[in-house]
This record gives sequence, C-alpha cells and structure tokens, in this order.
Amino acid sequence: MSDSTTNTLSTWVEVPKNSDFTIYNLPFGVFKNKRLSPRTGIAIGDKIVDLSVLDQEGFFSDLFLPEGIFLNEALNELISLGKVQTKKIRERVQDLLLADNEKLRDHSARGKVMVNRKEAEMLLPVKIGDYTDFYSSMEHATNVGKMFRDPENALLPNWKHLPVGYHGRASSIIPSGVPIHRPKGQFKTPDMETPGFGPSKKMDFELELAFITGKSTKLGDSVSTADAEDYIFGFVLFNDWSARDIQAWEYVPLGPFLGKSFASSISPWVVTLEALEYFKTEGPVQEPEVLPYLQCEKAYSFDINLEVYIQPEDKKASKVCQSNFKYMYWNVAQQLAHHTVNGCNINVGDLMASGTISGKTEDSFGSMLELSWNGKNLVKLETGEERTFLEDGDTVIMKGYSEKDGFRVGFGEVKGQLLPAK
Amino acid sequence: MSDSTTNTLSTWVEVPKNSDFTIYNLPFGVFKNKRLSPRTGIAIGDKIVDLSVLDQEGFFSDLFLPEGIFLNEALNELISLGKVQTKKIRERVQDLLLADNEKLRDHSARGKVMVNRKEAEMLLPVKIGDYTDFYSSMEHATNVGKMFRDPENALLPNWKHLPVGYHGRASSIIPSGVPIHRPKGQFKTPDMETPGFGPSKKMDFELELAFITGKSTKLGDSVSTADAEDYIFGFVLFNDWSARDIQAWEYVPLGPFLGKSFASSISPWVVTLEALEYFKTEGPVQEPEVLPYLQCEKAYSFDINLEVYIQPEDKKASKVCQSNFKYMYWNVAQQLAHHTVNGCNINVGDLMASGTISGKTEDSFGSMLELSWNGKNLVKLETGEERTFLEDGDTVIMKGYSEKDGFRVGFGEVKGQLLPAK
Repeated sequence: MSDSTTNTLSTWVEVPKNSDFTIYNLPFGVFKNKRLSPRTGIAIGDKIVDLSVLDQEGFFSDLFLPEGIFLNEALNELISLGKVQTKKIRERVQDLLLADNEKLRDHSARGKVMVNRKEAEMLLPVKIGDYTDFYSSMEHATNVGKMFRDPENALLPNWKHLPVGYHGRASSIIPSGVPIHRPKGQFKTPDMETPGFGPSKKMDFELELAFITGKSTKLGDSVSTADAEDYIFGFVLFNDWSARDIQAWEYVPLGPFLGKSFASSISPWVVTLEALEYFKTEGPVQEPEVLPYLQCEKAYSFDINLEVYIQPEDKKASKVCQSNFKYMYWNVAQQLAHHTVNGCNINVGDLMASGTISGKTEDSFGSMLELSWNGKNLVKLETGEERTFLEDGDTVIMKGYSEKDGFRVGFGEVKGQLLPAK
Repeated sequence: MSDSTTNTLSTWVEVPKNSDFTIYNLPFGVFKNKRLSPRTGIAIGDKIVDLSVLDQEGFFSDLFLPEGIFLNEALNELISLGKVQTKKIRERVQDLLLADNEKLRDHSARGKVMVNRKEAEMLLPVKIGDYTDFYSSMEHATNVGKMFRDPENALLPNWKHLPVGYHGRASSIIPSGVPIHRPKGQFKTPDMETPGFGPSKKMDFELELAFITGKSTKLGDSVSTADAEDYIFGFVLFNDWSARDIQAWEYVPLGPFLGKSFASSISPWVVTLEALEYFKTEGPVQEPEVLPYLQCEKAYSFDINLEVYIQPEDKKASKVCQSNFKYMYWNVAQQLAHHTVNGCNINVGDLMASGTISGKTEDSFGSMLELSWNGKNLVKLETGEERTFLEDGDTVIMKGYSEKDGFRVGFGEVKGQLLPAK
C-alpha cells in the first residue's frame, strides 16, 4: 500500500488474481539466475523488477544512491541508507509500474528490467547479525504450559509482564527452498534410564513472522514503543524448525539450544512496514496493565492471515493450520522496546521473530506439538496419511497475506523439505 | 610456545619480567593509534609488531598473502586463510624477533614496525558472527543450583550428560576498556506484588574464557572432538556482565536474555591454540561416562590461572577471585562437538565462552553471586570497602596467564568500568 493513498492503483504488469505481489506490496529481495549475479529486486506479479538495471538506466539518478548499491549479495547496505531513501526507491518503482506511466513501460530496457520470478533463485535477503526469537502468542505459551507444566497455571508469572524471548542462532537461518536434514542429538524420555543419541523423533515446525531491523542503535541506548517503527524495515515468514525431544532434554535452565539451532527458514521477500500499514489493527487487551516502557499509544498489530501446509514427498499438500498475526499478545513495538530497554544495541539486519503464532481454535495452532498435543492426537492429511510430528520427505510450506477492501499484500511462501538424518 | 620446541628462546625485544607477552605467546590483535588506521598486530613485551609494515617490507612475500590482509578492522579474513598460513605468519614473527636474527633487528624499518603498546587503542579483534555461552564449570552450576534450586540436588539431570549452553547477544560484545552503563530492566523479588522497573540492583561479572572459531562448517556438518582443534583459532578473556535481578525474573523458560545482553567484554589479544599447547592438562574425570560423540582421546583442558580484581573509582584494585581454566568439567572440544552435532554450522569469528569458571574453594568463585552467596556475605576489599554486588564506578579487571617451567603465556587483561544507569 502506498503510504498516502488507498486509491485503487493499476499497473501495466500482468498480476495474476490472488497474487501476493500486487502494486501495493512491492517487497524487496535478493535474487540471481543463470545469467545474472546476485542483485536487488522488487517483486510484482510473476516478475521481478531488477533494480540494478533501473539504476543503470538512470531511473534513480535524482536519489544519488551509492554506486552498485543494488548489486550487493544482501540488502543491508541498501536498508542502511534509511527509510527516507528506501521509501523513495519503492515509491519510484511503484510509480514506474503504474498503468499510465510510459517511462518504463515503453522503455527499450523494459525486457532487461523485468525478470521472470520462476527463473530466479532467491537468496537470503539480509546478512543477519543477531537473531532473537520471542514467545509472544498467549495461546502458544498456554498450550505449552498445559502440556509440560501445570494445566491450571499454564502461563508462567512473568509472561504477561514482559515479552519473553531468547537469542537464537543466526548462522543457520536459510532461505526458502533449502532442504534440511533431520538433526541428531541427545534426548531422554521418562522411560529411559540414561540419555540416548540419534536422529530426532519429534521434528516440528513453528509458524512465525519475523521483522528485520532497519536502523542501528548505540550500546546503552533504547528504542521507545513510539519510535519502534523507525527501526523496523519489514517482515518475512519464519519457520523455526524444532526438534522437540532434543529441546525437552536440554532446555533447563538456559533455554533452547540444539533443539533449534540446526536450521530456521525464512521467506525471501521482505514486505515493508509501509506495505502493511493499511492492515494494522488493534491488539488484544493487555491485563494486567504493562509497565510504562511497554505501553503503546497506537495499534501495532497486523491482520495477516497465516497458513501451514504439509506436503509428503511426491504427494499433494494439506493445510494443517490457519492462524493470524493479529492474535499475538505482545506486538513488535513492545518487543523492540523491551529488547533495547537494557541498552542492548541493534544493527541493521537483525532478525526478531514472533514465536509460534497460535490462535484459540485447534486448527489455528502453529506447531505439530500443539496440533497433535505432543503426539497424543493424529493430524489427518488430505492424502489419507496421518502425522503426529514430521516425517522424512515432508515439505513444510507457510504462507501469509493480508487482504482488505480488495487490496492484497502477501509474503509468498517459505518452504523447506525435511530430509533423513545424515 | 612454538609448536615443536620447548627450548628457551630469547628475543632482542625488551620483555619485562612477568610480561604475558613473551616470545612464546605472540597473540594477534587489531590496534590503531593517533597516526595509524586499524591494523593487525602481534604483541611482544610492551610493543606491538605492526604486521602491515612487515608485509609492506616484504617479510611475508613467500607466503603470497592477499594484499592488505593486515589492514582490516578485524582478524576474520586473516583467520580464514587457515591455520597453515596463520601459523606460518606467527612463526615468521617469532623467528624475526629471536635475539640472533638480524633481519628485523637491524632493519631500517624496525622503528616503524615496533609500535608502543601504551599508545595503541585495541579494537575488537574479530567481527563476531554468533556468540554462544556455555555453563561448563561444575562448581559454578552447583553453586547456582544450591542457591536457587535444591541444595541436595543442585545439578540438573542433564548437566553431566551434555555441555549446557545458550545463544548470547553478539552485538553488545565490546573490547576491554569500554565502560558500560548499569542496565535498566524489570525485576520482581518475592516481597514485591508486581514487577518493578529501574536500574539493576544486582550487577555482577562472570569470569570466563572464550574461544574464537577459525574454520567454518557447512550446515548439516558436525565437528568431532578429535577434529575440534582444527576449528579453534585462539582464546580471549571474557567478562559476561550480568544483572542478576533482571535475569532471575526473565529467565524461565527460555533462558537468560536482557540480564546479559547489555554488554560482554573481551580481552583484545587472541592467544592462539598453539601458544597454549604446552599448558594442556588432563581434565576432571567425567562420571557417568559421556556419550561417544563427547568422548575425547586427548587432553583438552588448559592450566590457565585466572584472577578477578575490583577497583572502586579512584582507589586501588583488590583481588576478589583466583580460579583456573583447568577446573572446567566440559572442555572446548566437547563444547564444539556438542554445538555442531545437530548440524549447526559455524563461521570464522564465532565466539564460544566457557561459562563462569569457579573452583572448589570460596576464593575461586567466578562471580559476585557466588562470592557473596547472593548478597548474604560481604566481600571485603583491600580499601576497607565491602561489596555484595558491583557498585557504580567499580572497574572489574580480569587477568589470565599460564606458567610452567619458566615459560609464560598470558592474556593481559579485560577491564571495564560500571557507570551509573543512563
């Protein structure tokens, strides 16, 4: 969505019905193909706008961008130019794609600028500095508490006072499409006298969204909830692959480690905060009242439909979960304010994930752990197969999109296949 | 220590008695001063060997190093050349510094090569990708367990089966000498009905050593204990500043977060694994026997004396702790093998810290939490002052060195002052 207008816009690019990549979206990503080295693109319909070619052709000459800014292997340097510049770039592209704008439409370089999305390989959009995972869905935290702790007091005492989170492993974050191997590790179930070792038997996904920071802070400084938006560049879908048996044995007292650090997958197109502005919505009432540094004057929740599919090898995909980002108890402004209230500095390209996004109904639970209630229930697939946790060969696909008044802005998908243990 | 010899070496450089930076050590660091831009140096006595000048003068010409390799702001690219090359560089410098080697000693550029350490500002030696903190001292884990859990069953069931660890915040790791501000955050003591917010009242240090990885792995691959040394470039002292009240309230169930992420300090000189080889020693017996992937055929413990001093503002420093790295239950080869057994990939410049290094005796506890037994005992300083936790203005200094048969290899120090909350 353009910042200033909700007028209907039309483009000369053919955009399929229900495409996530409308003229209102225009997410940033990094791609390459057989001919082209890594570069920055903006997605529209089934095409990618090659920003490096637009730049070479002089379409950004009045913005005085650093030379080669669109030929980097990640968006960090581009994002570091600041929101004023990245907004101008995105709005320039939007303008050039409008149906009645002939500048690019009738330009001789149009063929070179517009790359087929199908032929492109998408890379990790940013070089991630630090990655933080929150735990901000009350339904998810309650489900986990009921299963593993006290069903009557499922939420821990701190949960409603602060957005609980932990540091995750940045090196193993991979782009959509890269398969992973079932991890090996230690586990110990109550029936075992001593811990065993081997491939995880409880492989899971976690449905999450993550934001990418767009502005750095100095050590010792904090970001207020009111200023948080200045520091958020955009969002991606996030699959926080989890090995529940490894996690259960290792996580006390210092939190998840090897049960998570083998891989996390993200969608390659970074949907900007500006594109999601139109889909902002009120968050849940927070009771008890949160401390002043966590209070927000504006709405920071987003109405983003989320879906998870499991596709057994060579078979059709079945939807196993539909959730929504608006269910989150803690919003992104609160997460960022909390993360920095102690003076922890952030860099451009940090990734902060939401934690599993579960809703109230059983079909909205964002992990197999919850969907199968730790293996007690069978999750039925349309193929007739059943699952408690993931099986080798399964591909997990997550989708996300916002839709309102005929406007649609989506993330595409993050997918990854689970291969057998090495 | 040179790899192949324990012969006594002498150098033409004046090395003060008890200097950590002997001809056997030769640690790598990054420095700058009023005249010089950031560059790689090797410490000897009170001097720094400016490797960039040595390179310009052709002393490394037979090694075919990439141009400008010693003019980077961090050691990552240098370390990435691999151990074969970095060992050759260090051995070349050692050779050039030998008393009877006239090549540098009598060279016209000698004055330009040898920089005064006092006039140099030391920078963070590596750009840290991911930072992991282990919890590998049995005495420390036992002390914490006694204080906060069950004195009769202080160690948790997993502790002797795997090196417990967690991901830490990499962005807030700072070099020695940079002061920090007392962090603000939420805390809730048992007497409080609702959580409060403000500057931490329980500021602490943690005495640790950390290793820096020198070789990367691919996602899905693991490093065995037998191969671990190939992946360890060297060690630094590590002060894992901790806010105990913030940590106590936040850490369940996902581990430490804001109680640690405001800052960690490291010593600037990376002491290579080769330099520490001579000080290897047997580790403690591990009972029960660990799983096969954690078993070691060789000794991987190191006899490194460690000391912590507290220096109140404008007063003299008092030693409050003396410990030793050899007390660690889990060694670095086990930490690395465990970290990667699930396929988690590592990059050059990852930092893996030991966790607080405590010994059996009360004067060897590596944190104020343990020294004051969570505030119950007063820690006496030589100035007549007493401490339970750190006070504003206190500087914490950690030192570390190995000494055997007249050979000494040390880390210098990591120090940092605690300033009042912002």
